[in-house]
Amino acid sequence: MNKLLVFMTDFGLDDGAISAMEGVAFSVDINLNIRHLTHNIPQYNIFDASYRLHQAINYWPEGTVFVSVVDPGVGSSRKSVVARTVTNQYIVTPDNGTLTHISRFIGIDEVREIEETTNRLKNSELSYTFHGRDVYAYTGARLASGVISFEEVGSLMNRDDIVVFELFGCHKIDNGVLGQIDILDVRFGSLWTSIPYEDFKACGFTLADNVRVEIFHKGVKVYSSLINYGKSFADVEIGEPVIYMNSAYHMAVAINQESFAEVYHIGVGKDWKITMTKE
Amino acid sequence: MNKLLVFMTDFGLDDGAISAMEGVAFSVDINLNIRHLTHNIPQYNIFDASYRLHQAINYWPEGTVFVSVVDPGVGSSRKSVVARTVTNQYIVTPDNGTLTHISRFIGIDEVREIEETTNRLKNSELSYTFHGRDVYAYTGARLASGVISFEEVGSLMNRDDIVVFELFGCHKIDNGVLGQIDILDVRFGSLWTSIPYEDFKACGFTLADNVRVEIFHKGVKVYSSLINYGKSFADVEIGEPVIYMNSAYHMAVAINQESFAEVYHIGVGKDWKITMTKE
Amino acid sequence: MNKLLVFMTDFGLDDGAISAMEGVAFSVDINLNIRHLTHNIPQYNIFDASYRLHQAINYWPEGTVFVSVVDPGVGSSRKSVVARTVTNQYIVTPDNGTLTHISRFIGIDEVREIEETTNRLKNSELSYTFHGRDVYAYTGARLASGVISFEEVGSLMNRDDIVVFELFGCHKIDNGVLGQIDILDVRFGSLWTSIPYEDFKACGFTLADNVRVEIFHKGVKVYSSLINYGKSFADVEIGEPVIYMNSAYHMAVAINQESFAEVYHIGVGKDWKITMTKE
Repeated sequence: MNKLLVFMTDFGLDDGAISAMEGVAFSVDINLNIRHLTHNIPQYNIFDASYRLHQAINYWPEGTVFVSVVDPGVGSSRKSVVARTVTNQYIVTPDNGTLTHISRFIGIDEVREIEETTNRLKNSELSYTFHGRDVYAYTGARLASGVISFEEVGSLMNRDDIVVFELFGCHKIDNGVLGQIDILDVRFGSLWTSIPYEDFKACGFTLADNVRVEIFHKGVKVYSSLINYGKSFADVEIGEPVIYMNSAYHMAVAINQESFAEVYHIGVGKDWKITMTKE
Repeated sequence: MNKLLVFMTDFGLDDGAISAMEGVAFSVDINLNIRHLTHNIPQYNIFDASYRLHQAINYWPEGTVFVSVVDPGVGSSRKSVVARTVTNQYIVTPDNGTLTHISRFIGIDEVREIEETTNRLKNSELSYTFHGRDVYAYTGARLASGVISFEEVGSLMNRDDIVVFELFGCHKIDNGVLGQIDILDVRFGSLWTSIPYEDFKACGFTLADNVRVEIFHKGVKVYSSLINYGKSFADVEIGEPVIYMNSAYHMAVAINQESFAEVYHIGVGKDWKITMTKE
Repeated sequence: MNKLLVFMTDFGLDDGAISAMEGVAFSVDINLNIRHLTHNIPQYNIFDASYRLHQAINYWPEGTVFVSVVDPGVGSSRKSVVARTVTNQYIVTPDNGTLTHISRFIGIDEVREIEETTNRLKNSELSYTFHGRDVYAYTGARLASGVISFEEVGSLMNRDDIVVFELFGCHKIDNGVLGQIDILDVRFGSLWTSIPYEDFKACGFTLADNVRVEIFHKGVKVYSSLINYGKSFADVEIGEPVIYMNSAYHMAVAINQESFAEVYHIGVGKDWKITMTKE
């Protein structure tokens, strides 16, 4: 193992929770290299957890251990698992859908259910609300440091039994494609869609095309405009909209130096669909 | 020393202050392992600083050095100290009450006043507003790296002379307990009280009991309801309230997947009391 | 090289972007010591990026590599460069003004334009919107780890050709000085001005003086009051204003334990000027 241990949660950075997780991990092995993906996943939002993990994981070295704790079902009967990807990285997580994107786009090799009688912080048995500290950080640290092997995490599960949710993906329509607005580039307000660049390109669009973009909220059209297809924001004037391929190689819509989501009150998730078509 | 140096402040993460502190510490010893407890302690809030330190410190290895800078009195005559706990951890801090919870619940072995003529960043004598960088990060780094010993921090103080504030604690009342709402689980809006699990249990409550919860603001009752006592949020439906033992082994009140504090406009501190009784 | 690699961006901490940058850097060299200056530079705000870099850099060891990505022109023809300061530190950045304060107050020794055919993450050629990951983090990591030398970054530029913006600085006026409100101590709402302590002192002000402070928005006076000149906030009562030398050795204005900027609705930048004069 490479000693890299990456934490992601929806706990925020305002209290001592993340530090308690770090302390537990350093108590396992003081030479761990603990990093933080983000702790600002919107509360209880498993879709975003799944998306952000997938957004980052490919850039990390083989053998890295990720601990993801977006866990609205803590204390329920949801399982705790460790998945190994086909690219030989590990994700320690509640089995609640967090593995969806990785399972779909990278591939999971093996999944083991955490055996909590052995893989739990000593003297934490009474604690029912902070498995992030008592089980996940502890198990992630033991795995990343080599104190336990992947086999010692617990019994093998059927990898097809893990919880995944349906992804809307991309659909071919007349003269274009239909997708979902999956998530925002939060800081800049750009819309990141479920439409892969390859599918968009297959429709015959080329750079500098004007593309008809329509956005639907619960089936009702709330936006329609021709938007220029550029390589980047700087291909249009400040304040102008642009379609571009984002850093996750999917199609996105932005306004140069403004927030598209705020200006047009656009949200994300299954109620928000988008089409990109040729006129 | 284990080279672990943990910073906590109320400086936020928006400017270069924390990075200047890190730079000072790495200039002392490039092999330090610098970590961050939180930098979002509410401004000037010494109670929260004391609470968060205590929330995290027990999970860290022996020998870890904590630097806490919530310092509304910077530039005044308040002392700068380093405390060693009975569990052999160190806290570098202004002597302003930050050591209250650790002193009360863990125990302080020795306290030394920082001798600033020797323990101060070179050429920072003119700087009066950033002891976090000039004195605390510098001294913490020198201590954590072994450049100075604990004795070289400065003269021993009488440990009973450090500033502590009174803690409300837990009081037995008819059929139950009275405590204070100490702090929020900020991200999720749960109320964390000063009532230890052991005191609550001693009243004879058992899991699945309905407990009468009453909340008082400046003596005026602002909330009263029967709430189910569960192990975790998942023991009640989404949107339902629950009493539970939190990860700091005190009693807490939450709404599953909502913010109790926001829904009922509940605050924290000495003006906010709570009772848990049997009907 | 000392293996220290410090990231600063305007990307925020809510998504997977910073983690992707870290992953790229650790994939170059797993022994890098990656740190974060801040990721909350206001979006597109190159002035703040330049200021915050300068605020922190002097406290870091020689040989540290800084990667700054506030890059509204990503995808345009703006250059990507690495500057070496006269103090032997490195800044990897778009050439868009980010080097202004360092160039003016520290001094730049050499600047090289990044040769992107060699200094770019493999297989990222299609990506036009995340040079922070594909070019800057990658190049910074290779430089900080010694995989490439400074010379291998690319061709030497004329250091006078880098983009810098004008700084308002400090101007002597009758009985005092005129400056600009450069930036806030964000968390506490203090006004940090462009007036160096030395220039202020040269006017003959001494501690405990009452100084006439006037603030102008687009030339219109919006604030005028006598304010006490103290060493620190604690020199005045809570709620009282104070003039003091800040931790960057410039003059600042605060209210003890309140936000001057909020109370008086004061902003920053070229539209906000301030005078400090003797009565």
